[in-house]
Amino acid sequence: MNRKNQHSPDPANLPAHPGKRARLWRLLYGHGPGNGSLMVLPLDQGLEHGPTDFFPHPPALDPQYQFELALAGRYSAIALGIGLAEKYFAPYAGRLPLILKLNGKTNIPDDAEATSPALASVEDAVRLGADAVGYTIYVGSPRQDEELRNFRQVRQDCERYGMPLVLWSYPRGRAVDAKGGKNSLYAQDYAARVALELGADIVKLHEPEADAGGSPAPYAGLGEDAAARTGRVVRSAGLTRVLFSGGTKNDDDDAVLGKIAFYMQSGATGVMFGRNMWLREFDRAVALSRAAHEILAKYPR
Amino acid sequence: MNRKNQHSPDPANLPAHPGKRARLWRLLYGHGPGNGSLMVLPLDQGLEHGPTDFFPHPPALDPQYQFELALAGRYSAIALGIGLAEKYFAPYAGRLPLILKLNGKTNIPDDAEATSPALASVEDAVRLGADAVGYTIYVGSPRQDEELRNFRQVRQDCERYGMPLVLWSYPRGRAVDAKGGKNSLYAQDYAARVALELGADIVKLHEPEADAGGSPAPYAGLGEDAAARTGRVVRSAGLTRVLFSGGTKNDDDDAVLGKIAFYMQSGATGVMFGRNMWLREFDRAVALSRAAHEILAKYPR
Amino acid sequence: MNRKNQHSPDPANLPAHPGKRARLWRLLYGHGPGNGSLMVLPLDQGLEHGPTDFFPHPPALDPQYQFELALAGRYSAIALGIGLAEKYFAPYAGRLPLILKLNGKTNIPDDAEATSPALASVEDAVRLGADAVGYTIYVGSPRQDEELRNFRQVRQDCERYGMPLVLWSYPRGRAVDAKGGKNSLYAQDYAARVALELGADIVKLHEPEADAGGSPAPYAGLGEDAAARTGRVVRSAGLTRVLFSGGTKNDDDDAVLGKIAFYMQSGATGVMFGRNMWLREFDRAVALSRAAHEILAKYPR
Amino acid sequence: MNRKNQHSPDPANLPAHPGKRARLWRLLYGHGPGNGSLMVLPLDQGLEHGPTDFFPHPPALDPQYQFELALAGRYSAIALGIGLAEKYFAPYAGRLPLILKLNGKTNIPDDAEATSPALASVEDAVRLGADAVGYTIYVGSPRQDEELRNFRQVRQDCERYGMPLVLWSYPRGRAVDAKGGKNSLYAQDYAARVALELGADIVKLHEPEADAGGSPAPYAGLGEDAAARTGRVVRSAGLTRVLFSGGTKNDDDDAVLGKIAFYMQSGATGVMFGRNMWLREFDRAVALSRAAHEILAKYPR
Amino acid sequence: MNRKNQHSPDPANLPAHPGKRARLWRLLYGHGPGNGSLMVLPLDQGLEHGPTDFFPHPPALDPQYQFELALAGRYSAIALGIGLAEKYFAPYAGRLPLILKLNGKTNIPDDAEATSPALASVEDAVRLGADAVGYTIYVGSPRQDEELRNFRQVRQDCERYGMPLVLWSYPRGRAVDAKGGKNSLYAQDYAARVALELGADIVKLHEPEADAGGSPAPYAGLGEDAAARTGRVVRSAGLTRVLFSGGTKNDDDDAVLGKIAFYMQSGATGVMFGRNMWLREFDRAVALSRAAHEILAKYPR
Repeated sequence: MNRKNQHSPDPANLPAHPGKRARLWRLLYGHGPGNGSLMVLPLDQGLEHGPTDFFPHPPALDPQYQFELALAGRYSAIALGIGLAEKYFAPYAGRLPLILKLNGKTNIPDDAEATSPALASVEDAVRLGADAVGYTIYVGSPRQDEELRNFRQVRQDCERYGMPLVLWSYPRGRAVDAKGGKNSLYAQDYAARVALELGADIVKLHEPEADAGGSPAPYAGLGEDAAARTGRVVRSAGLTRVLFSGGTKNDDDDAVLGKIAFYMQSGATGVMFGRNMWLREFDRAVALSRAAHEILAKYPR
Repeated sequence: MNRKNQHSPDPANLPAHPGKRARLWRLLYGHGPGNGSLMVLPLDQGLEHGPTDFFPHPPALDPQYQFELALAGRYSAIALGIGLAEKYFAPYAGRLPLILKLNGKTNIPDDAEATSPALASVEDAVRLGADAVGYTIYVGSPRQDEELRNFRQVRQDCERYGMPLVLWSYPRGRAVDAKGGKNSLYAQDYAARVALELGADIVKLHEPEADAGGSPAPYAGLGEDAAARTGRVVRSAGLTRVLFSGGTKNDDDDAVLGKIAFYMQSGATGVMFGRNMWLREFDRAVALSRAAHEILAKYPR
Repeated sequence: MNRKNQHSPDPANLPAHPGKRARLWRLLYGHGPGNGSLMVLPLDQGLEHGPTDFFPHPPALDPQYQFELALAGRYSAIALGIGLAEKYFAPYAGRLPLILKLNGKTNIPDDAEATSPALASVEDAVRLGADAVGYTIYVGSPRQDEELRNFRQVRQDCERYGMPLVLWSYPRGRAVDAKGGKNSLYAQDYAARVALELGADIVKLHEPEADAGGSPAPYAGLGEDAAARTGRVVRSAGLTRVLFSGGTKNDDDDAVLGKIAFYMQSGATGVMFGRNMWLREFDRAVALSRAAHEILAKYPR
Repeated sequence: MNRKNQHSPDPANLPAHPGKRARLWRLLYGHGPGNGSLMVLPLDQGLEHGPTDFFPHPPALDPQYQFELALAGRYSAIALGIGLAEKYFAPYAGRLPLILKLNGKTNIPDDAEATSPALASVEDAVRLGADAVGYTIYVGSPRQDEELRNFRQVRQDCERYGMPLVLWSYPRGRAVDAKGGKNSLYAQDYAARVALELGADIVKLHEPEADAGGSPAPYAGLGEDAAARTGRVVRSAGLTRVLFSGGTKNDDDDAVLGKIAFYMQSGATGVMFGRNMWLREFDRAVALSRAAHEILAKYPR
Repeated sequence: MNRKNQHSPDPANLPAHPGKRARLWRLLYGHGPGNGSLMVLPLDQGLEHGPTDFFPHPPALDPQYQFELALAGRYSAIALGIGLAEKYFAPYAGRLPLILKLNGKTNIPDDAEATSPALASVEDAVRLGADAVGYTIYVGSPRQDEELRNFRQVRQDCERYGMPLVLWSYPRGRAVDAKGGKNSLYAQDYAARVALELGADIVKLHEPEADAGGSPAPYAGLGEDAAARTGRVVRSAGLTRVLFSGGTKNDDDDAVLGKIAFYMQSGATGVMFGRNMWLREFDRAVALSRAAHEILAKYPR
């Protein structure tokens, strides 16, 4: 395990609040790659998409599968909601950091007016010994006022308890669709800045795509390539650390690793890949996780 | 009475919280079959459907009928709302566990935007000596954000007081209808996972039906038989115990018992049959309940 | 005054909560008929319908008229809202029980989405020395979730302070209209059960009418006569005591008394007649009230 | 100054609450006409209508103008909102009672679903040394439930602090328009009763107009003259004191004084004329105010 | 540095509340021009408009750019939101006053029903050592009741903590559009008065434009020139100090300075120019800021 950075992390990169500092230190230097980069295993798909997501690899339906993988693959943390945390986390507590995802919803109604209600509180995260909370904002939703108002309470509670805040900054809703869609550079770039403006410590974004029509100026005619686009959203997030999402499953291990390398080169702090990890056979998933480690080891932050 | 398990229940199956543990122990081992399975008698139909449901057997209009049946039939618990609990429960307190159903609504408006408001609190349940609370979530309703937000408070109160939480996880609303209906495997499977993700101790589900058109992939073409479907939703619920609902009345006692056996073989923890029990003559209902006991006795959990 | 029951009321009919017991005792045995039946004079029409209701008998516009009538006619209680209670009740306090009606609205907008906001609290009732609170629920309204949620707080406050709760259980809203209207047996029967399920001590209902089209099965083809219908809703209310409303004014005194006798024969605990009392000349109204007393005296509860 | 009544006000006309009594005494007997009648100068038009209202007499744009007029014209009180009170009231405190208007809105959106949010609290009024609070209810608005619910809190705070409550009882919204408009006798008569039912100490109304079509029965065919109409609404307000509004500016001083005399003859407690006072040259406005005093002096209340 | 006024500011211009007085003194006399005028550098565009606004001058994407400019250009304060304040303000604390902008939103959905949710609280501002808070009200929005209700809490917290309140008083929403648009004299004049009526200490407005059609009378035919219009809105704001916004970028430095001189001649207390400052090369932006200082120095307030 690469722990040489453990003894000399740059304290300038960590906030002054002692509680937040202690928890971020554990995520960045105490677990996972241990060099300030982050490799997080998410498991909120069962609620967000339904059991559908587990069909390609049925053992992944049992949450213990992801916990075992997170441990064996030496992830920086596992990210999941209150129900799973309360029933499955106890045996792993201390050995594996927890990012408690506070809000969520089903995808049964469409996302035209998407909003994600809180299912747990920062106090729940403190009680469970979590090292961070996760929270989704549907950037640009017609109900953004509710989204942002609810977020405020979470941010203030995080401030009070010294809890790092990981923002799932997701463009969503009919106005986003009308302006080029949720994965466009316009949408992801705005989402990155929103995370910074709202006070997130870490933001989870999707790789920005070229304009497929509908993006507002100056994005519409920008014509940047993937590297320029991805670097741009990382810069827009400023001092908020960026994690990129893995998205739907890709069976090609090399392609998955290529994505990780690309994101790290673009300035990301790390990745949050779920289905691309836990929809594989256990041994292969562990091997892929370790290969990912080798990439992240090259990018101390 | 089968009480041999009372002296050696597997404590690993019970949560660490002492209050929750004590109450769950009473439900699982102290009453009813006493082997970790559950047989619950529900009486929320008067509010949910109106007095209509009592027409086939008028004595059942008087709530005392169900209390007497629950006692004579040795049910694990009776499940009903605050009004009935406050007026009828006292003479049975101690002899019969109470699951206080906290929310409810009439079925006068349609269910396109279904939501179920809380009519009582976890504190009411504590005050009445209940051993669990019941709560309905309309999974997939356009108003899911309210549903989930309200549920959060209930879950947190349950955590505080050590009160087991039984979730009526009911797919409902226009988006559910558009995706194959409330009883489809898609809908019930999602509902099972939602119960787990939200932190329910026990979930009440309906038997999942084959796709009658409209189910999203991969459910649409799955073609599983009833046993596969029912086993699937039990697995999707993970460590959340599953009870199956009885639904509308079936006059054939053997068919009712056959359903119970089928659910138990599929991995359920028990059943919550109401109209199929209390819409029978008292003696016949008691006899049917005892026959159900014999089935549950074969499935220690 | 018939007070022989005062010294031996059946305590089994009263709740265990000492505050609620004391107040219910005053209503049932300490005032009015004094035999467990109830004769309540309501005055919420000025808010609910506007001054229109007082046009047939202008002296009734002055609330003192109703207070004097309630006293002279030996009513069990007067039922009115916070504004009238604060300005007119003081001289009658102690001599005349007060049911403080907590919520209300104007009828200027239509009732398609009827909801009744709280104008006062249970604490106000305690402060004013009221012996019960009144609260309206629009059963079946599209906004039933708000209605029920608000009611929950009132019920819990009543529990805390030992305040009896009289529910105006009124079917209302476009779904009720579509299912046969607010006064159908279907609607009134459901409203009676809702009152029981919600935990009302006393419910105010309207006499159920035969199906005029639109009632759901099995009510549509039931064909019961008035006595059967009225008895049915009283039974559906279970241990919740039933008062019947007087509705619009009937100039025929005998017809009014006939209605009262009919309701009592049907199992009601009493009546809440307003316009049929206070829209008469004072002396005639007192005489009619006394004649009503003689009827109620025959029905000790 | 007419202060002979100061030494013998009828205490029966004042509420028992000592704080409310002290403040009402100051308004009714300690300032203004001093005989139990009221002459209030309102300045909420800048918020409710915009600076438009000051165009006919630009000096009135400076709030100091109204404060000086209220002092020189010996008004019972000045009525305005929190922003003006905090910036302009201090030099007049003690010499001029303040009615702090708690809620308000712009007239930029139309009034079909009018609602008036609170901009200040009863605590603000206490802190500023106000002798009453003002509050607007849009009677009959489709959002009446919010209006009434918000009002409840204000009334309860007034009760707690002993603060008199002046209700701007204004019919408004699409249902009011459909039933004959906001100034019809139907609407104003209902508004008067609502003020009484809600617990206002003083109500501000507009002079009721004859039915111009659309009024419900029995108002539609009533055919009462102005005196009968105005007397009617005063009676409908019961023990709630009535102030009439001045409305848009009338350049004819005699007509303005004629209105005041007419309202007092009809039973009003006083007037709240704004634009008809402060849209005049200062000296002329003071003279008109003094002439109004002479009229009110004839109507001790 | 012009600090001669520091020793003799007119205390009559400052509020009595000691905390508010101390903070306003720092803004008006302790920093910036130091003569009672204000020069504020805003940075809320990243949230309000997205990263788009930084495209013309990419270095401005890094918030440190604006902090350095505010310091080098001797601004009275920098105005920005919680996320930027928490991550970038610490090194400047004490040397540069902070106006913490409490609310904000994205411009992804349109503004027909604009509302701006609070992202931080007055307590956050106190904790960060801010000398004022900023808050946006969308004057005339269909959701004005929410806007105003939320503002009330902020104003009351400011009162409690002695925190000056800077109001972004922005006409917005479909009713504003229908009445001539957000920058018309009608809209800006109303917005100025709203700021005064709501209790703002300082208001940020836009330069009012001549009626382009749609303004209500008397604005429609007013025909005032720019100086008359601008002076008018300053007078409508009364004792609330007025800052004018810079709006979109103008490359002509002289034109920018001309605007500043014009606003000061019109009675403004100062300016809040963002893009016209920080979308320039650093040295040129500093030079422009210093030239602005020379203008403001001529207008002691």
